Amino acid sequence: MQRKYLAKIFVTLRPSVLDPAGVAVQSGLKQMGYENVEQVRIGKYMELTLISPDEPKARKDLNQMCEQMLANPVIENYRFDLIEVESQTGVF
Amino acid sequence: MQRKYLAKIFVTLRPSVLDPAGVAVQSGLKQMGYENVEQVRIGKYMELTLISPDEPKARKDLNQMCEQMLANPVIENYRFDLIEVESQTGVF
Repeated sequence: MQRKYLAKIFVTLRPSVLDPAGVAVQSGLKQMGYENVEQVRIGKYMELTLISPDEPKARKDLNQMCEQMLANPVIENYRFDLIEVESQTGVF
Repeated sequence: MQRKYLAKIFVTLRPSVLDPAGVAVQSGLKQMGYENVEQVRIGKYMELTLISPDEPKARKDLNQMCEQMLANPVIENYRFDLIEVESQTGVF
């Protein structure tokens, strides 16, 4: 049986890496009157649905996808939440 | 007294809006052998620290920042989690 999983993936810059886009957004907010914003860091959020026989296999695949394509491990960290959304029978 | 809050902001495309970047990532994953990925949607994740006297004021400011700058309400949805990270005394 194959199961369907929804992964919510967060990719963030490592704390030591400068974030010019975040600085620009903070500066824009300041110009709009929001002087109370101390820091802005911008990352990516991805929702990915995948079919997998079980959760360990889904986690293994997701880790590989993040390492190889979705994140740049040199400058970014990633983490994901995994939710089973529906069970499926049949051939995929 | 002023408090410091950390907002974790998620900006996602509305479900009815096409996501060409997500389709491209899905296609790339498929070429790498991940044929079990059904859908990819790409959004933004932002971490923002702000100083505010209380949580309702922080939420009000964040909603305005999202509506005016961080998200495009025509094609995007947003939501945020708010965490108080530290209390501060003194003048800001």
